[in-house]
Amino acid sequence: MEKIAVLGAGSWGTALAMVLNDNGHEVRLWTHVAEHAEEINRTHQNKAYLKDVVIPEAIHATSDLVAALKEVSAVVFVLPTKAIRPVCQQVKAVLDHHVTIIHGTKGIEPETFKRVSEMMEEELDAACYDEIVVLSGPSHAEEVSVKQPTTVSASSKSIASAEHAQQLFMNDRFRVYTNKDVLGVELGGSLKNIIALGAGISDGLGYGDNAKAALVTRGLAEIARLGTAMGADPLTFIGLTGIGDLIVTCTSVHSRNWRAGNLLAKGNSLDDVLEQMGMVVEGVRTAQAAYHLAKVKGIDMPITAGIYQILFENADAQAMVDQLMTRTKRPETDEIHEMLKAHYLKAYLTNE
Amino acid sequence: MEKIAVLGAGSWGTALAMVLNDNGHEVRLWTHVAEHAEEINRTHQNKAYLKDVVIPEAIHATSDLVAALKEVSAVVFVLPTKAIRPVCQQVKAVLDHHVTIIHGTKGIEPETFKRVSEMMEEELDAACYDEIVVLSGPSHAEEVSVKQPTTVSASSKSIASAEHAQQLFMNDRFRVYTNKDVLGVELGGSLKNIIALGAGISDGLGYGDNAKAALVTRGLAEIARLGTAMGADPLTFIGLTGIGDLIVTCTSVHSRNWRAGNLLAKGNSLDDVLEQMGMVVEGVRTAQAAYHLAKVKGIDMPITAGIYQILFENADAQAMVDQLMTRTKRPETDEIHEMLKAHYLKAYLTNE
Repeated sequence: MEKIAVLGAGSWGTALAMVLNDNGHEVRLWTHVAEHAEEINRTHQNKAYLKDVVIPEAIHATSDLVAALKEVSAVVFVLPTKAIRPVCQQVKAVLDHHVTIIHGTKGIEPETFKRVSEMMEEELDAACYDEIVVLSGPSHAEEVSVKQPTTVSASSKSIASAEHAQQLFMNDRFRVYTNKDVLGVELGGSLKNIIALGAGISDGLGYGDNAKAALVTRGLAEIARLGTAMGADPLTFIGLTGIGDLIVTCTSVHSRNWRAGNLLAKGNSLDDVLEQMGMVVEGVRTAQAAYHLAKVKGIDMPITAGIYQILFENADAQAMVDQLMTRTKRPETDEIHEMLKAHYLKAYLTNE
Repeated sequence: MEKIAVLGAGSWGTALAMVLNDNGHEVRLWTHVAEHAEEINRTHQNKAYLKDVVIPEAIHATSDLVAALKEVSAVVFVLPTKAIRPVCQQVKAVLDHHVTIIHGTKGIEPETFKRVSEMMEEELDAACYDEIVVLSGPSHAEEVSVKQPTTVSASSKSIASAEHAQQLFMNDRFRVYTNKDVLGVELGGSLKNIIALGAGISDGLGYGDNAKAALVTRGLAEIARLGTAMGADPLTFIGLTGIGDLIVTCTSVHSRNWRAGNLLAKGNSLDDVLEQMGMVVEGVRTAQAAYHLAKVKGIDMPITAGIYQILFENADAQAMVDQLMTRTKRPETDEIHEMLKAHYLKAYLTNE
């Protein structure tokens, strides 16, 4: 039994706290809103985020960060991207011992294009942990909270840290694989939202399953291409945090990014869509970041470019699909083949 | 403009005939049932297979194989697996000139475990064609027949033959990529049905999107492992005919294999399910073949083994999922990494 702090009492933070509690750990669920903590402790529910789910009484919610972090062996950050830096600063001021740092946030910082673990490394005291662990994979919080079978990946540059996270979370309903490719896992989790926007656009235009399967397959190839150029392992993109997460996002009508794409295809402007949704649509910013990164790196990303043009240059969605369908005839696997070949030869020649 | 024979007037044969007709070719749609040909020519519909679709008058249906094959430049076989050998024998007796041979049939011969192109090579006159072309990918016939955007792969050991097929079928709604890995394309198209059975079982047990995404991702890894051991290119399994086709099959409730899995999970016996469905469920035989092939080749296929045990050894589906979820903790990508590494090193060292 270990003491663990989960920072962030949204749907995913609450679901992860429940998994840790099921495994016999003492869990402190921290939120910066005192009333929210008080409501969870009083009602044993988190109605705004996980309707109808009963939270075990052993899970203690608190807005007191000092109390939350006392004697913990691990701190799990499950916050919106924009809250990562300020909360890390608070943790740095308070945390006085060595812990395992884990995060479950999917996003990229808009201005800097930095990944969540990079932001955390800049803010936290490096003496307090070995290497950050990223928990990611196909995992609707709603399903995890009712013990539906789920698999995720615990990724870290430190195998010991990844294995600590694996040991904390793993049980017979929540299966955790370890993975060394932090860069690929974080990029896959973010970039997949571009393809989810595309899936929403395709469905919104009234296109069928054939088109969506092609979009997901070809979209995966191009996000793997960008990710690999940035240093990720191409294999990560065909694992749980790549294709697995992509399937969940693109086939669920509950995905925010899918819904935004759907509204765009129906002729709404980006401003109108964002106003209608009333919340952050991560894929929009990620499409912008990926479009510019691809240009800088000279990577061919036709689907991302098409979505960017629909989002920011008023391109017509229908015309964009027609254009993608009439590109020059070409062999299917040559590009991804070349990418993987280069990856393995480099590994072989440098004896990695 | 070329003359082309399409053999088989089911939904997929009819849809492919319509694509060829759209591209300006003279299409003969052959069926061995004279009344069926007569009905298509009279009503310009194929009600049993493509309800509500109007077939262009230029498409001529016939049950006369000599007339169908006269002066054609290509013959497209779109038949049930069990009809492949007898129809090839009839074609051999009649065809008197060189053509491109294409097939669009997904299946494995139950007794011999042979792929469709292998069966065709055994029956056809090798002097009449260069190399067989396989047309495969995520493609519901219903969507193709109403010009929904669709992408497929034309795969052949002969690039010239694959490019001929590509040129015949490609248009702005039907995008054709070429591919050299016939073995991988045919195996992927068949083996994916095992995972579709699994997806039906998962949904039938009431499990959610997290479980299905994990099943598809891990299932893909193990069918790629078997395919690669049999000589296929691992990349084929992450292309249109692999993951693309898998996504369409596992997320569509119209898939026969999904429906069979769903009924099994609800406690029906395999005999009952097959009787209820009243038609061939290819995934059942493919699961049997893959299970035995994996044993012979020493390949670890836990999902296929689980499905085999549910199908043929009365294993309890729920217990099987629990067992899969509680396997030893392990890194996610090591196995597929080793497979790809071996593939690329072999190619490098043999200078392929």
